[in-house]
Amino acid sequence: MRREELTALAADALRAAGASTAMAESTARCLVAADAQGLPTHGVARVGNYCDHLKSGRVNGMAVPKVVREGGAAVLVDAADGLAFPAIDLAIAEAVKRARTHGVAFAGVFNSHHSGALGILLEPVAAAGMVGLAFSNAAACIVPAGGAHPVFGTNPVAAIFPRRSGDPLVVDLSLTQVTRGEIMLRQKRGEAIPEGWGCDADGNPTTDAGKILLGGSLAATGGVKGTMLALAVELLCCAVVGGTLSHQITGLAAKEGPPIRSGQAFLVIDPGALTGQDVYLERVETLVAEILKDEDVRLPGARRRKVEAQAAAGGMTVDAGLVAELRALAGS
Amino acid sequence: MRREELTALAADALRAAGASTAMAESTARCLVAADAQGLPTHGVARVGNYCDHLKSGRVNGMAVPKVVREGGAAVLVDAADGLAFPAIDLAIAEAVKRARTHGVAFAGVFNSHHSGALGILLEPVAAAGMVGLAFSNAAACIVPAGGAHPVFGTNPVAAIFPRRSGDPLVVDLSLTQVTRGEIMLRQKRGEAIPEGWGCDADGNPTTDAGKILLGGSLAATGGVKGTMLALAVELLCCAVVGGTLSHQITGLAAKEGPPIRSGQAFLVIDPGALTGQDVYLERVETLVAEILKDEDVRLPGARRRKVEAQAAAGGMTVDAGLVAELRALAGS
Repeated sequence: MRREELTALAADALRAAGASTAMAESTARCLVAADAQGLPTHGVARVGNYCDHLKSGRVNGMAVPKVVREGGAAVLVDAADGLAFPAIDLAIAEAVKRARTHGVAFAGVFNSHHSGALGILLEPVAAAGMVGLAFSNAAACIVPAGGAHPVFGTNPVAAIFPRRSGDPLVVDLSLTQVTRGEIMLRQKRGEAIPEGWGCDADGNPTTDAGKILLGGSLAATGGVKGTMLALAVELLCCAVVGGTLSHQITGLAAKEGPPIRSGQAFLVIDPGALTGQDVYLERVETLVAEILKDEDVRLPGARRRKVEAQAAAGGMTVDAGLVAELRALAGS
Repeated sequence: MRREELTALAADALRAAGASTAMAESTARCLVAADAQGLPTHGVARVGNYCDHLKSGRVNGMAVPKVVREGGAAVLVDAADGLAFPAIDLAIAEAVKRARTHGVAFAGVFNSHHSGALGILLEPVAAAGMVGLAFSNAAACIVPAGGAHPVFGTNPVAAIFPRRSGDPLVVDLSLTQVTRGEIMLRQKRGEAIPEGWGCDADGNPTTDAGKILLGGSLAATGGVKGTMLALAVELLCCAVVGGTLSHQITGLAAKEGPPIRSGQAFLVIDPGALTGQDVYLERVETLVAEILKDEDVRLPGARRRKVEAQAAAGGMTVDAGLVAELRALAGS
C-alpha cells in the first residue's frame, strides 16, 4: 500500500468517527509515519482506539488547539480534549519560531491525549536545524522507588539532533524496561516473562504476564534510576505544563471515561545561539565517526530511516485485518 | 567538625595549590555541601585531585569565567580551564535571571572541569521558585549500543523541583549502572561484582572489578536505553554547549595532562510563565501525597536533606585521614 493511500484511509476513519479534517489529517500523518519507520505499535493500529474515544466523547473531534499563555520563550498550548497531534504541531511550530528569536524555547501541551512516537513529533525541529527534546506522561504504570502502587506513566523521552547532511540522530524511549505490548505478546504465546519486567497488583515481582497486565505495574528501565527520571518527566508534563497527573488518568484502553488530559513538554534549542551551527555540526560528525569505528554499531534512529526508505520505494506492508478494520471505520 | 570550618579548610587547600579566592570558595562550598548531604564521593575527598590539577596546569587557578555568547534566553559561559564551580555559579545566575524574563533559559558551560553533584548546583534554581535540569559530560566510560569501546561519559542528569514549603525534590543520577567508586570498593574488599556492571577492555562482560577499572567500561543504566540517554547528554554538553567530547577527555585520575574541558548544560523553567505558580505548587503536592501513600517510600532528595540537617545540628563527621590530608595541602 502506498503511504499516501494509507494516510488518506486513516484520516477517513478518524473523520467518520467525528474528527475535524485538520485533526484527522494531522493524526493520520503522524501515525503513518510511525508505521513507515517500522513502529507499528504507534501506527495506524491506534486508529480504532482513537475512533472509540471520538465516539464516546473521551476525545472532542471538533477541538481546536490554541495558545493560551505565552511569555517570550515559553508557550502553553491547550489541546482542548482533542487528539494530541494538531496541538503538538502548533506547540512545535511555536517553539521553533521562539527558539529562533530567543535561542531556546519551551512549549507545553495540556488537555492532551496519546502522543504516539515522540521522536517523530520532533522531526520539524531537526528540519529547522535545531535540537529538540520531548517528554510525555501517560496513565500510571511505574511504581516509585520503595513504593507499592503505580504513580508515574511510561513517561517517554525523546531527543533529536540534526546532522550536516542526512538523517538526524533520534533517541526515543519510554522509561519502562519493556512495553506493555511486549508483555501482551508473551502472554499470547503462553510464555513466562523474564524476572524484572513487572510486578503484580500487590507489588510483588512476577513472571506471569497476566498478573502484570491485570492491575500490576511495569518495571522502570534501570530500576531506581528509571523511577527518578519518570518522576522528573511527570513533574515537567503535569506540574509545569498542566497535564493530568498519571495516577489520575483512566488508561487509553477504556473506550468510555473522562478525557485523558495528559501533558507533553517540548524543548527546542538553537545551536546557532550557543556554539554556533559550524561547531555544532562538526562535533556531531566527530561523535558519529567515533561511534562508527566499531562494527555492528547502529546510530539511534538509523533503523527507522532505513525502513522508511524501503516504505517509500516499495510501499508499505500493512496487516490485511488492520486495513479491513480501517476501511470499515471509514465506511469505504 | 563544623561545616564552616571544613569549608574554610578545603578553600585554604585549593588556594595553596593556586586557586583564586573566588574559585577556592565556590568550589569548597559545593564540595562541602555534598559531604553535608551524605555524598562523600563528591565532597572534599576530591580536593586532593583538584589540587593536583591546579599544580600541574590541568586547571588554571586564575581563570575568571565569563559570558562569551548570549541571545536572550540562551547563554554560554567559558570556564576558561578553571575549576567548574565559579563558572556554574555564573551560568545558573544568568539562567535564573533570563528565565524570569523569557519564561525559560538555557545556560551552557564549556572549557569546564568536574562538576561534582549536579543536584547541589541546582539549589539556587529551586530557591528562586524555578524548575531546573542539569547535564554534564565526563571522560568516556559507556559503550554505545552494539559498540565495543567507550564513547560517552557517565553523563549525569539532575532535576530540581521546588515545593510550596520545605525541601525541593531532587533527582540526581549518573547514566551508569553503578559508579566507578562502587566497583573500586568491591575490588578493595576482594569481592567479585555482579554480572552486568561492566565490561573488560575487549568489550566482554566481566565480574572482575580490576578488568573493568583497567581500560574497561561501565554498563549504562537500563542497558540500551541508558546508552541512548548518554548520547543525548553527550550532544547537549558537547555539540550544543561546546564541551570536549568524552572520548577526547583524559580522565580526572591523571594528575598531568591536558585540561578536561568538559561541558555542562542547564535548563531553567519558570512555572509562573506556564501553568502559573499556584497550579504548579498544587500539582507537586498532589503527586507527593500520592507517592507517600505507600509506607517506606522515600522522596528523591529527602535523605540528603535529613543528613544535612543532622550535619547542621551536630557537625560533620569527616574521615581523620582526609582532614589530615586537607591540613597538609593547606599548609596549616
